Amino acid sequence: MYTITQYTDFFISYLENQIIDKEPKNLYDPISYILSLGGKRIRPVLTLLTTEIFDTDYKLALPAALAVEVFHNSSLVHDDIIDEDPIRRGKPTVHKKWNTNVAILAGDAMIILTYHYLQGYEPNLAKALTKAVNKMGIEVCEGQTWDVDFETRQDVTVSEYLKMIEYKTGALIATSMKMGAIIAQTSKENYDLIYDFGLNVGLAFQLQDDYLDLFGDTPTFGRRLCGDIISNKKTYLYFKALEILSESEKQQLMELYAVRLDDNAKKIETITELFQASGVPAATQESIKKYTFKASEILDKINIDEDKKTILRAFAESLIGRRV
Amino acid sequence: MYTITQYTDFFISYLENQIIDKEPKNLYDPISYILSLGGKRIRPVLTLLTTEIFDTDYKLALPAALAVEVFHNSSLVHDDIIDEDPIRRGKPTVHKKWNTNVAILAGDAMIILTYHYLQGYEPNLAKALTKAVNKMGIEVCEGQTWDVDFETRQDVTVSEYLKMIEYKTGALIATSMKMGAIIAQTSKENYDLIYDFGLNVGLAFQLQDDYLDLFGDTPTFGRRLCGDIISNKKTYLYFKALEILSESEKQQLMELYAVRLDDNAKKIETITELFQASGVPAATQESIKKYTFKASEILDKINIDEDKKTILRAFAESLIGRRV
Repeated sequence: MYTITQYTDFFISYLENQIIDKEPKNLYDPISYILSLGGKRIRPVLTLLTTEIFDTDYKLALPAALAVEVFHNSSLVHDDIIDEDPIRRGKPTVHKKWNTNVAILAGDAMIILTYHYLQGYEPNLAKALTKAVNKMGIEVCEGQTWDVDFETRQDVTVSEYLKMIEYKTGALIATSMKMGAIIAQTSKENYDLIYDFGLNVGLAFQLQDDYLDLFGDTPTFGRRLCGDIISNKKTYLYFKALEILSESEKQQLMELYAVRLDDNAKKIETITELFQASGVPAATQESIKKYTFKASEILDKINIDEDKKTILRAFAESLIGRRV
Repeated sequence: MYTITQYTDFFISYLENQIIDKEPKNLYDPISYILSLGGKRIRPVLTLLTTEIFDTDYKLALPAALAVEVFHNSSLVHDDIIDEDPIRRGKPTVHKKWNTNVAILAGDAMIILTYHYLQGYEPNLAKALTKAVNKMGIEVCEGQTWDVDFETRQDVTVSEYLKMIEYKTGALIATSMKMGAIIAQTSKENYDLIYDFGLNVGLAFQLQDDYLDLFGDTPTFGRRLCGDIISNKKTYLYFKALEILSESEKQQLMELYAVRLDDNAKKIETITELFQASGVPAATQESIKKYTFKASEILDKINIDEDKKTILRAFAESLIGRRV
């Protein structure tokens, strides 16, 4: 086994060698661009790591790890069009640097490339991996559709929000791990357990992300950015608050999420107060704890050495910022 | 063997049973919608037909035929966004009936579904079919990118245009046939021959489409619509004319393709004259004849009974409107 940093480096070297430098430039340049913007490469590293956890050389998993990262980036390119995001990782998004048409086609080609990278495996493996990507891909599309729908719906429940992030975020993390288990050709039981472990880690990760945006003002948890409030992005905090707040406070919150302001200081303050008054921060932490605990319980059931569980726990912990 | 009408009916029955009626509606309704708009179902029928040409029950090919049709429709949904087309087959396009975000996600899901439908085959077959779709999918994206690029480039050659339609239109028709051959598990040689046959038929088909838009004013050839001129869509006629016309006529043509008018009668008349003066209609027919002849030569090499060649010739002929 290597360290996470090493797996990340292995993946980045591999990725750099796969960059497609060919015509038409307006198709391949945006693909190279988005793949070179960096990011933590969590998903491909999870594929490599899981492969080795199940006693198989990570090198066998590099094409699958690439597939996972390319799929993830295809969804970023299309989501950025949908969300009208001009910036990703400090750089212009593809539809801003080029245009929407280029971004649509680059994203399409990246979905197809995802499947292309899997066809180097022998047929049984290729089929199992392709099926895992199909399930995940459909769930990501469903999750993103729910997410867009939720923007305009007034009656979204917390459980609907959780289902949405399970599909939009959890499925990709869970599938990244499952693909490692498939490549290692461990048992069907392990495929399912590692998938469920990833799913719960993914949910905890997304809820922590929602939480940190507003309450991440400690050195341990990172910076408080409030980007979700500024852009009226309805996250767990919002839907949880609606469940708890009085009718008049609910109205106030909904109105605040319907306006865009130049100066957001007052808006952030009021929303923070509404969330705190309704016990949303504690409830969110409770929920993160629940998924983290579930992930830990699942991990206990997987038939691998204790030192390997420790590695998975440590990585999950580094993602969630909480002991798994 | 059945008739083309029968294969079409078999496919439509199968398609109707595969309609996905589930949540989120904003993902699955547009998919059902575009798949229900009709069209001649040329590509899936070619898959079924080719399977039977190689002595295999068409029923085995139904999932692959569905994959081909769903992929084709995914590209229509995304191309309609890119081309800003409000109408497809007499009905509102997906991005008009819903919105661009819905159309992006529906198209993405349809690409994934394409691969999903192929994973019911046994692993070797699934892999071969998936690889065929990967190659085709990438070419369609490349072709569509060239097509968009050509809108703003002034130096596009006829050979670049032919490469573009080979990728954008030819690859899908060729792959539809190749997939039938793969399912029939005929020889590698036959896979390649039937692919090349399809490619040449596809090219002839697209050139005929370009031709008919302006010169299709006879009962045999269909209606003259001039839609390409009205929307300034640069087709074979345009690029061929640029090769032949004098510098001043070239300027005139390029200027005519740069304006959008309410009354197009005069524009259509002038462009028609420019094309006729430069011998473009005859040159286009010559080119269609060349691809048709090439297709016919390839067909001769395929090791199947003469009556099956007759069926393929007849279908190709019905597509191109010219004897193969």
